[in-house]
Amino acid sequence: MIKQPRFKKAILTALTMLVSMSSLMLPAQAADDNLVAVRGSFFDFTDDPWKHIGHEEESARFFADGMLVIDNGIIKAFGPYSEIVSKYPKAKVTTIQDRLILPGFIDGHVHFPQTRVLGAYGQQLLPWLQQWIFPEETKYKDPTYAKEGVKHYFDNMLAGGTTTVLDYGTAFPTAVEAFFDEAGNRNMRVICGIGGIDRNVPKTFMTPPDMFYTESKRLIEKYHGKGRNLYAITPRFAYGDSPELLQKCSQLHKEFPDCWVNTHISENPTETRSAPLEHGVRDYLGCYEKYGLVGPKFVAGHGVWLSDSEYARLSKAGATVSVCPVSNLFLGSGLFRLGRATDPNSRVRLVFGTDMGGGNRFSMLSVLDQMYKVGMCNNTMLDGSLDPSRQDDSAAERNKLNAYRAFYSLTLGGAQGLYLDDKIGNFEPGKEADFVVLDWKGGPPATAWHQSLICDRPTTMDQAASLLFGVYSVGDDRAVDETWIYGKRQYKKGK
Amino acid sequence: MIKQPRFKKAILTALTMLVSMSSLMLPAQAADDNLVAVRGSFFDFTDDPWKHIGHEEESARFFADGMLVIDNGIIKAFGPYSEIVSKYPKAKVTTIQDRLILPGFIDGHVHFPQTRVLGAYGQQLLPWLQQWIFPEETKYKDPTYAKEGVKHYFDNMLAGGTTTVLDYGTAFPTAVEAFFDEAGNRNMRVICGIGGIDRNVPKTFMTPPDMFYTESKRLIEKYHGKGRNLYAITPRFAYGDSPELLQKCSQLHKEFPDCWVNTHISENPTETRSAPLEHGVRDYLGCYEKYGLVGPKFVAGHGVWLSDSEYARLSKAGATVSVCPVSNLFLGSGLFRLGRATDPNSRVRLVFGTDMGGGNRFSMLSVLDQMYKVGMCNNTMLDGSLDPSRQDDSAAERNKLNAYRAFYSLTLGGAQGLYLDDKIGNFEPGKEADFVVLDWKGGPPATAWHQSLICDRPTTMDQAASLLFGVYSVGDDRAVDETWIYGKRQYKKGK
Repeated sequence: MIKQPRFKKAILTALTMLVSMSSLMLPAQAADDNLVAVRGSFFDFTDDPWKHIGHEEESARFFADGMLVIDNGIIKAFGPYSEIVSKYPKAKVTTIQDRLILPGFIDGHVHFPQTRVLGAYGQQLLPWLQQWIFPEETKYKDPTYAKEGVKHYFDNMLAGGTTTVLDYGTAFPTAVEAFFDEAGNRNMRVICGIGGIDRNVPKTFMTPPDMFYTESKRLIEKYHGKGRNLYAITPRFAYGDSPELLQKCSQLHKEFPDCWVNTHISENPTETRSAPLEHGVRDYLGCYEKYGLVGPKFVAGHGVWLSDSEYARLSKAGATVSVCPVSNLFLGSGLFRLGRATDPNSRVRLVFGTDMGGGNRFSMLSVLDQMYKVGMCNNTMLDGSLDPSRQDDSAAERNKLNAYRAFYSLTLGGAQGLYLDDKIGNFEPGKEADFVVLDWKGGPPATAWHQSLICDRPTTMDQAASLLFGVYSVGDDRAVDETWIYGKRQYKKGK
Repeated sequence: MIKQPRFKKAILTALTMLVSMSSLMLPAQAADDNLVAVRGSFFDFTDDPWKHIGHEEESARFFADGMLVIDNGIIKAFGPYSEIVSKYPKAKVTTIQDRLILPGFIDGHVHFPQTRVLGAYGQQLLPWLQQWIFPEETKYKDPTYAKEGVKHYFDNMLAGGTTTVLDYGTAFPTAVEAFFDEAGNRNMRVICGIGGIDRNVPKTFMTPPDMFYTESKRLIEKYHGKGRNLYAITPRFAYGDSPELLQKCSQLHKEFPDCWVNTHISENPTETRSAPLEHGVRDYLGCYEKYGLVGPKFVAGHGVWLSDSEYARLSKAGATVSVCPVSNLFLGSGLFRLGRATDPNSRVRLVFGTDMGGGNRFSMLSVLDQMYKVGMCNNTMLDGSLDPSRQDDSAAERNKLNAYRAFYSLTLGGAQGLYLDDKIGNFEPGKEADFVVLDWKGGPPATAWHQSLICDRPTTMDQAASLLFGVYSVGDDRAVDETWIYGKRQYKKGK
């Protein structure tokens, strides 16, 4: 990094002060006529709750009566209503009552071309790909089907409160173009790329490495950084990728270093054993390290069977694991070790994901429900009752997905995992105004009476957090009442 | 058993023939004016699909256009519409279109006084009981609260398509009386009893063995066999029961041999290790065997940590395990070994249960979703990829909860598990007319497009079974459109 000359720094400091003063002291400007604002109960995060074990509330913010001011999609101000309203008297205010407003959910691992085949019966990873997934994804060669598919997909995402996704395209550029075009229509912050695969799959599904390179490059130039679209170089998974294909990924990564790299790692035991053999390395992560892909913006899905050595290397590299418990249970892949991944000695960046269609639900609230359960099951192994030599109380505590850890993971934590926390993840001014409006009574009929045990309406952070736990432990996607994208409401339940 | 004399047998045969002939040949009687009938697509079971592995359809019946005739709550006739309608021309027919009609679901393990605290945060079994469960159940001492609670409870059950439950009362008779009274109002086939507990719990929650005996006896005489109510002698769990209390259960069991015995077994590792020590026996099942409780109509919940020896003894005794995967995941108890329990060499009777509130969902469709996942996870252990010595392909196959096994388990299988298959479980004439009407498109917004991949409307059993798989893998409790009790519709979605 180039050192900043002193005088430049002084000017910057002065400018920053002026900006701060103006927002504190000056009356609202004429431009305020374009401002929109939302008044309601807001809950977001400013830090990682795993850094505040036992005091997780220190990582969060709650304004029972808060106000969010938005200027052309960007958050301009945020805080208690009484403080904010006087500064923006001309903003057009929408009041949302009896709801909790959170930053939009981030789904860090999802396959849009599997929208129709989610929840398919009965196979572990490899045969399930052959029987269900590849045939459905092949339909997306047809632009008409692709267009229909991505519409269903984004409708489902918005209905689940998800506003940002890191997505897998198929091998076919048509599908990825349909995806980016539709995301653009809806003005959503998304990352996607062509899924490269040229081994251990049906021939019709293979992309020759040269074509993968050419098409990836074409789509990067067409979409990356256009509107809110971003591109991920996507080697689908090392078991399905030849050294030549991974070499092309490496080349793209060097040419376009600000693109993401999105892939799979250590999902299923059989695949975890096979992948390193294919690439002549010691473990699964080694397949990607060999081609220089592992670093910031490298996101690898699942990580159920990661070794301690791989965790340490991921942590050091600033790389990210996408955590997909719904899928891991549905395909019987195994139990993700959340307590291990959040070990402060080698904390790994995480983003949670549905892995729809390996995951059988679109809703990130289902991901929380299932991650909670996976954590609890892991703890049966860690409490010493089965094997005293494995007792680890601190990992067991970290495995427990309380409401702070849960919603941090779907918002700020996910944004940090995707290196998007300068743009999304909480209500800091300057970030993009994507958010979800939760009805804490929404869910199966049992939800309302359960939540009434906590309070009628939250006035403290503790009450709000307790209601939020109920939103995924008793409620479900029916809790999502509205979803806002870039300052505009794009989904309203029942409409 | 007394041998039947030959002439008696001959008379019986002749009578049976006459009855068969009359239903085939005689015109509908005047009494037919009281008959009600339902026309629609019906799916039920006549056998155990685990006996027909690879040909599960042999255990099931499907009539795309079927008819069910009901006489005062009892099924009078069932079959293809074209065959049945001509015999009952005066029956008042309700036509139900675009739905699948199944026998009502049976929940074989549930705690009604936990309705409000389902989905409580963060503890394994024993501390969770102390923090959440005992305080809530204690509220049911108050008859007003108990009355409110059971109303919520049965509303939730009907909304989930559940028509029969084997239920745990609290220690307090007030609660059990409220339960039976409300079940009577709704004319539901239910089993329940006072939960006896006098060890390792707060003092306010203990029932002295003498009082447990006296109150159980009083309630058996008041409720057992009255209307559709049935009684279960209920030692809550061996870890919480003294030898004196189990002795009282034994005495009640001898005095009222047609009552059920309902309890817990081998749920959590810590508890599983402790219970046998409390009773000086070799394993958990031994606690109940010691008091002569294990036989037909003995139902023990969870069984996650049952040994092979215990499975063999349960099978031989004709006893039943209630399978509660939602709860086992939510409390981190472990993974139920479905493939082991259905081993043909020592097949154990099973009934599936929510274990609400240890289970965080009321819906038996959630039980199927979670049991499917538990089976898939078990199979990661059985496919030999982690430990070749544990490879067991046949147990792995039995672990897979396909649609036949799933809905058999909620209907005829559950009825057999509860020894109620003479009364409920399928659409055989003579049984009670409890059923559920499923909308296979009901669930999160993704459900409809997914199901359209299979068919618009099922005409074959295979299509119907594929849709039914989607009902729990993609859909959820929103699939329950109507619930009928004893020939009358008692729940309609959205009304």
